[in-house]
Amino acid sequence: MSAVSGRLAVIGLGPGDARWLTPEAEAALAAAEAVYGYGPYLDRVPARPGQARHPSDNREEGARAVAALRHAAEGAHVAVVSGGDPGVFAMAAAVCAEIEAGPETWRDLDIAIVPGITAMLAVAARVGAPLGHDFCALSLSDNLKPWDLVERRLDAAAGAGFVIALYNPVSRARPWQLGTAFDRLGRLLPASTPVIFGRAIGRDDERVAVTTLGAARVVAADMATLVIVGSAETRIVAREGRMPLVYTPRAVTRASA
Amino acid sequence: MSAVSGRLAVIGLGPGDARWLTPEAEAALAAAEAVYGYGPYLDRVPARPGQARHPSDNREEGARAVAALRHAAEGAHVAVVSGGDPGVFAMAAAVCAEIEAGPETWRDLDIAIVPGITAMLAVAARVGAPLGHDFCALSLSDNLKPWDLVERRLDAAAGAGFVIALYNPVSRARPWQLGTAFDRLGRLLPASTPVIFGRAIGRDDERVAVTTLGAARVVAADMATLVIVGSAETRIVAREGRMPLVYTPRAVTRASA
Repeated sequence: MSAVSGRLAVIGLGPGDARWLTPEAEAALAAAEAVYGYGPYLDRVPARPGQARHPSDNREEGARAVAALRHAAEGAHVAVVSGGDPGVFAMAAAVCAEIEAGPETWRDLDIAIVPGITAMLAVAARVGAPLGHDFCALSLSDNLKPWDLVERRLDAAAGAGFVIALYNPVSRARPWQLGTAFDRLGRLLPASTPVIFGRAIGRDDERVAVTTLGAARVVAADMATLVIVGSAETRIVAREGRMPLVYTPRAVTRASA
Repeated sequence: MSAVSGRLAVIGLGPGDARWLTPEAEAALAAAEAVYGYGPYLDRVPARPGQARHPSDNREEGARAVAALRHAAEGAHVAVVSGGDPGVFAMAAAVCAEIEAGPETWRDLDIAIVPGITAMLAVAARVGAPLGHDFCALSLSDNLKPWDLVERRLDAAAGAGFVIALYNPVSRARPWQLGTAFDRLGRLLPASTPVIFGRAIGRDDERVAVTTLGAARVVAADMATLVIVGSAETRIVAREGRMPLVYTPRAVTRASA
């Protein structure tokens, strides 16, 4: 018998601290003999006696997935951790791609994806309910797709009235994409459209800003930032001495559609 | 002084059982003097001594939000529970809307939105990573928006290559919308496009089906079902004796875009 007894769990840690770590994720981490992940995510997992840790670099998703799959194929119980949800611009797709491309025996592995709170849900919760009606999630990174496709998707989403959550808005190597996206969205949406910046949500250095599309260019963003751009329906409710509430109503009337 | 000391927490329970209830949600439930919610969601919250429970009907989001806000405005610590995430087609937007429309004092309330695992993340996790790249979430209910807007959004999302998560695909009063949506999507996407049905995820009667757009019409769906329709990029990885993996690659090559 060459049956594989290994197991690979791809675990979402949620954003920020342990307040959003689900019981399922906690149990999956406890059951792992080895944990793989991007260093800063791995740092959020408390060390356990006898559990091996394999940190790797940000850009090495494919290699990390292969290393974890090889380890699991030896019969081990292996975990790969992602911030947020592993299925949203994260490790679960990388693991699936390597299983498809890899040896047939990897398809026999017990694969479990453990969902987590993804960044847009945590940022939205901080300000109200900007994702309260139809919305999309779009990665602004043009490392993995052509920029003209990003622009086509921005146009389609804004034109059809979707609220837009922008993942990977900025990095050191991609400094101009977010500003260009705001300009592009400004052709289709009013300057008064609410825009939310959520940085490092759930961490000590968390920062949340509510602004408008017309003023969004001056707000600083980085790799730890998630940006939500409202639709024409999205509303800001001012509150004295408090952060305003931002929400997108559940109902769309024909007049505004 | 007329300062309001009340607090309202809008809490996401996640789908299914307690495996996806976050520590933050657990703490917020424990701190509440009264809990409001749709009956079946409230049934998932263990009774606590001294904590009042106010179940209400499915269609009464506005009235439920008003009752909870009034109660909080009396100085109480009140919770409203949602299945999944409260910010995704759920109670957080209803609460924000009632605050905007209600008495000025409601804006002084301490409002906390507690995020949860939303259904599309849990369903996606069951099969791999179908939401691994750009995607949107769209409610198929035409109770709260005109059907022609639903169709316009389906066209825009499919045409631009977003994977589509369909919330509220079917109800007793809306029997034809899902089939019509599949027909509509079939104009823009190949019949081989992967489609996932996830029903009652995390519950004892959970059912997951992987099919294609061409065959999707024959799969039964109900109010507890979430449907994910892939893009032209989404792939199915067959596994002998196991559910196939479905994933959308992180990279889009120019040729396929």
